[in-house]
Amino acid sequence: MYHYEALPAAEWFRRNRELAGFHNPARALYQTVRELVENALDATETYGILPTVYVRIGVVDEQRGWVSVYAEDNGIGIPGGEIPNVLGRVFYSSKYRVRQHRGIFGLGLKMIVLYAQSTTNRPVYVRSATLKSDKIYEYAIMIDTNSNSPAVLHRQEYPNKYKWHGTAIKVCIEGNWHAAKRRIEEYLRRTAIVAPYAEIIFRGPDVSLRLGRRTTKMPPPPEEGLPHPKTVDADMLKQMVRENGSATLLELLAGNFDGVGRETARAFAAWAGLAPDARVSELSQDDLVRLAERMRQYEGWRRPRAVSLSPAGAELLELGARAILGAEAVFAVTRKPESYGGHPFIVEAAVAWGGQIPPAERPLLLRYANKIPLLYDEGVDVARKVADEFSWQNYRVRFPAPLAVIVHVCSTKIPYVSAGKEAIADIPEIEREIRLALRDAAKKLRAYLARREREAELVEKYVSLAKYVDEIAHSLAVVTGASRARLAESLHRLIERKIGMTAEELLRRA
Amino acid sequence: MYHYEALPAAEWFRRNRELAGFHNPARALYQTVRELVENALDATETYGILPTVYVRIGVVDEQRGWVSVYAEDNGIGIPGGEIPNVLGRVFYSSKYRVRQHRGIFGLGLKMIVLYAQSTTNRPVYVRSATLKSDKIYEYAIMIDTNSNSPAVLHRQEYPNKYKWHGTAIKVCIEGNWHAAKRRIEEYLRRTAIVAPYAEIIFRGPDVSLRLGRRTTKMPPPPEEGLPHPKTVDADMLKQMVRENGSATLLELLAGNFDGVGRETARAFAAWAGLAPDARVSELSQDDLVRLAERMRQYEGWRRPRAVSLSPAGAELLELGARAILGAEAVFAVTRKPESYGGHPFIVEAAVAWGGQIPPAERPLLLRYANKIPLLYDEGVDVARKVADEFSWQNYRVRFPAPLAVIVHVCSTKIPYVSAGKEAIADIPEIEREIRLALRDAAKKLRAYLARREREAELVEKYVSLAKYVDEIAHSLAVVTGASRARLAESLHRLIERKIGMTAEELLRRA
Repeated sequence: MYHYEALPAAEWFRRNRELAGFHNPARALYQTVRELVENALDATETYGILPTVYVRIGVVDEQRGWVSVYAEDNGIGIPGGEIPNVLGRVFYSSKYRVRQHRGIFGLGLKMIVLYAQSTTNRPVYVRSATLKSDKIYEYAIMIDTNSNSPAVLHRQEYPNKYKWHGTAIKVCIEGNWHAAKRRIEEYLRRTAIVAPYAEIIFRGPDVSLRLGRRTTKMPPPPEEGLPHPKTVDADMLKQMVRENGSATLLELLAGNFDGVGRETARAFAAWAGLAPDARVSELSQDDLVRLAERMRQYEGWRRPRAVSLSPAGAELLELGARAILGAEAVFAVTRKPESYGGHPFIVEAAVAWGGQIPPAERPLLLRYANKIPLLYDEGVDVARKVADEFSWQNYRVRFPAPLAVIVHVCSTKIPYVSAGKEAIADIPEIEREIRLALRDAAKKLRAYLARREREAELVEKYVSLAKYVDEIAHSLAVVTGASRARLAESLHRLIERKIGMTAEELLRRA
Repeated sequence: MYHYEALPAAEWFRRNRELAGFHNPARALYQTVRELVENALDATETYGILPTVYVRIGVVDEQRGWVSVYAEDNGIGIPGGEIPNVLGRVFYSSKYRVRQHRGIFGLGLKMIVLYAQSTTNRPVYVRSATLKSDKIYEYAIMIDTNSNSPAVLHRQEYPNKYKWHGTAIKVCIEGNWHAAKRRIEEYLRRTAIVAPYAEIIFRGPDVSLRLGRRTTKMPPPPEEGLPHPKTVDADMLKQMVRENGSATLLELLAGNFDGVGRETARAFAAWAGLAPDARVSELSQDDLVRLAERMRQYEGWRRPRAVSLSPAGAELLELGARAILGAEAVFAVTRKPESYGGHPFIVEAAVAWGGQIPPAERPLLLRYANKIPLLYDEGVDVARKVADEFSWQNYRVRFPAPLAVIVHVCSTKIPYVSAGKEAIADIPEIEREIRLALRDAAKKLRAYLARREREAELVEKYVSLAKYVDEIAHSLAVVTGASRARLAESLHRLIERKIGMTAEELLRRA
C-alpha cells in the first residue's frame, strides 16, 4: 500500500517519451530529424560558421519498419571526453545558458538515444572533432537508464589530417518514413527560408532536396546574456544570493542582471528604499520575496538588450512569406525586446495578403520559434489564440479573406507547452507582444487595403468618365474644328490629372 | 565555447514549469487544484475508501496576486518518513506502478512546491496520517533545487486521538482566481459526474460548491498489473533480463507478463522456435530485440486483463452525458481492454444527440482520461482528431447537428502530450480503439435516428389518413345508418393497426 520509489531521470523520460514528441513511428522520425538538424544549426551559426548540414534517411528493414537517420554538420564539434555525457546523460547539456538556441531543453539527443534503444536496441554512433582538433573521436553509445549514465559500447580515435570539424550522428530507429515524409520536407524547406545562409542537403528513400545557400551574410551570433531584472523571481534571486553570499546589494544587482550597472542599481535601491551596501547574505526569505517584487515593479530598468537573441529580421520574414505563400503583399514588423520570467524575447510578425493565399474563415498561420518552423499542435499555440481573437474587422479585413499571419518568437528560453517543442504556451507577456506585433503589421495592411479600395474606386471613376471622352471629343471637334484625336487625348490627360495618375499606372496597380 | 553542465532534475523542472501546466497565474492555479484533487481521489478510491475531498481557495494578498489553496482528503495518508521525499524530490513517487492512477508522472506535488517557492517563496504545509496511525505528522517543505532534495523547514508530530487518516496540504502561490474560476468549477463538476461516490466540497472567494455523494457503490479498486507481452519493447525486456538473470525463458515469460502462465509461455516458445529452458542471461542484445518482435507478432496471447484498470462504465457515461449535456438520447460503449507499449487501456465512448446540445458543424467533445476531465488543449488530443475524421454521414448524421461525443480513456499509463496532462497523444492503438468505440456507439445512434425518421413518416401517414376519417365516417353513417362516432372510432383503430401503434404512443414518441 505504501510503496514509494525514485526513478532515474533517464528512465522517467524513456517511459514518457510522448512528452518529448516521440509518440509513434511517424512523429518519432520527424522529431529525430528535427533534433539533429537543430543541433547542427546550433553548432554552426551560433558560432559564426556558415552551416552545411547533410541529412540522410535510409530504410534498414522494410518489414520491421526500421530506418536509419544520419546527420552531419560542420559545426564546432563536441570535445571527445564530453561526447558520452552529451548523448548519454539526461539533464547534461551545453544549452542551459542565457543565449538563443534552437534546442532549449538539452534533451533532444538523449531522447533519440532512448527511443533507438527502446525500439531497435541499437546504439547511436557519433563522430566528432572540435575546431583545430588533432583527433576525430568516434563512439557507439547507449544509455543505462538505471543510473542515467552513458554506456560506451565502442570508442576510437583517428588522426584529423584535414582539420575537419563538426559532428556526425547515425541512429537506427523504428520510424514511418511514408507517414512523416511530407512534414519532414516542409520542415526542411521552411527552415531553409529563415536560414538562407545555410546549405541543407537531404536524401530520403524517394526524395532528394538540395536547399542551397542563398547568402553568405549571417546575422551576428547571439552573445551570452544575463537575466533581466524586471522579471526575476524569488527563487532565482535566492540562488544568486547563495552564489554571491558576501556581496552587497549593489554588487549583486550590478553584476548579475542585464543592463544593470552601478548607477542603475543605485537608482533602484534609492527608489526601493534599500541600503545599497547591505550584505545580501543578511536578507531574510521575506526580504528576498519583497526584493523580487520591487524589482518587478520598478520602471527605471533599461529595456532588455537583444545581444543574446538572433531575430530573423522583418526583411527575411517578408521574403519568406512571399516564397512560401506566394502572397501579393506582405507587411512585417520586428518588435523591441521584452522579457518574461527573466528571459528576454523578441516577437516578429508578418501579415500577408492575397496572391496564392486561399481565402478562408480565419487567418492561415505559420509559426516559428528561434527560427524553427513549428508544424504540429497549432491548436494550443498562443499565436493561434491571438490571431483568432484579433479584431481583423478594424483593419478592413472581412472573412473569408486571403490572409496569412507569420509569427516568429525568439528567446533565450521559448516557453514550449511540451518538450516536443511544437507549441508556445500562453505567457501573458508573449501574448501581449504578439498582439502588438499583429496590430503594427495589420495597420500597414489596412493602409494597403484602403489604397487598393481607393484605386478600385478611381478605376471605376476613370472608366465612367472615359466612356464619354469620345462623344465629347466628337461634339467639340464639330464645334471648334479642332482635331478630334487631340481633343480626346487632352480629355484623357484631364481625367488623369483629376484622379492623380495615368491610365497605365492605374491599370498596373489595379 | 565548450561549456557543458548537468542540471539537477528539480532545477530543470523549475525552469521549465510550462511543461507541467504552470504557464501563468491562471493556469497554475487551475493546475494546482487539479493536482491536489487528483491526489486526493487517488489516495481514497484506489484503496476502497469513499472519498471526501475538501478544497478551499482564499485570497492572501489581493495586490500581489497571492492566493492560498488548501486541500484535505480522507485517504490512506503518506507515511511520516516519506512526506519530505514525496513532496520534495522530483522523480520520487508511489505512482510508478502498473495500476490506473489519475496521477501519472508523480510530478504534480513537486511542481506545486516549485511553483510556490518561485512565486511567493512560501513552503508547502502538509499534515498526514496513515490508516490506524497513532500519530499525525506535520511538515513545512521546500525543495533544494540544487540537490533535488527536500528542505524541511518545520516538522511536528501530534497524537492521532481520533484515528484520523488522510492528507491535508496548504500552499500559497501567485494565482489568478478570477481568470481560473470558471474552469475550476467546470473541472470539479465534471469530476463529480464520473465519481458519483465522492463528496467534493469547494469554497472559493465568491463560489461555494457542495457536490454531494450520490451513491456509496464504488467500482472495485484497480489491482496492480503486469505489462502485456504483445506490446513490450526491447529496452523493457533488457531490464527484466537484468533483474531475472538466472531465469529460463519460460520463467521470464510466465512470471512477468499479464495473462501469461507456463502453458501460454510454452506455446509461444514453440511458435517462436525458442528453447523454453534457455537461460535469459545468455541471450544476446539481438536475441532480445528479436524476442520482443516475436512477442509483438504472436497472436496467441490472452487479451489484456482489466484488473489494473477502473473504467467508469457505459452506464455512468450515459448518466453523465445526460447530466452535463441535457441530451435527448445517449449511446455509450465500453470497449474490451487493449494495450500499447506494454500498458493496458480501455476506451469508453458515448454519442449524445439532441436535447440541449446546440447544433454545430462538428461534434462537441468531452474528454476524460482516468476519470479526469480534460479541459485544455483539445486541439491536439487524439480524440478530437478521430471525432473530426469520423464518417458521421454514414450514420445518418448531417451537420450542423446537435451531436456530442464523450471519450474516456483509462490506462495504467495515459500517453499525455505534456506533463500538464491535458491532451492524449496519437498512439495508433488508442486512435484505433477510439474509432471503433465511436463506430459502436454511432451504430446505435443510427438505429435511433432511423427509428425517429420512420416514426416521423408514420406520424405523417397517420395525419394524412386521419384527416379523411371524419369525411368517410360521415358518408358511411349516411349509407349504413351506423353511429358516426363509432365509425370514426373504428377507422382510427384501423389506422393504428396499420401503422402498428396507437395515436397516443405515436405522439409521445414523436
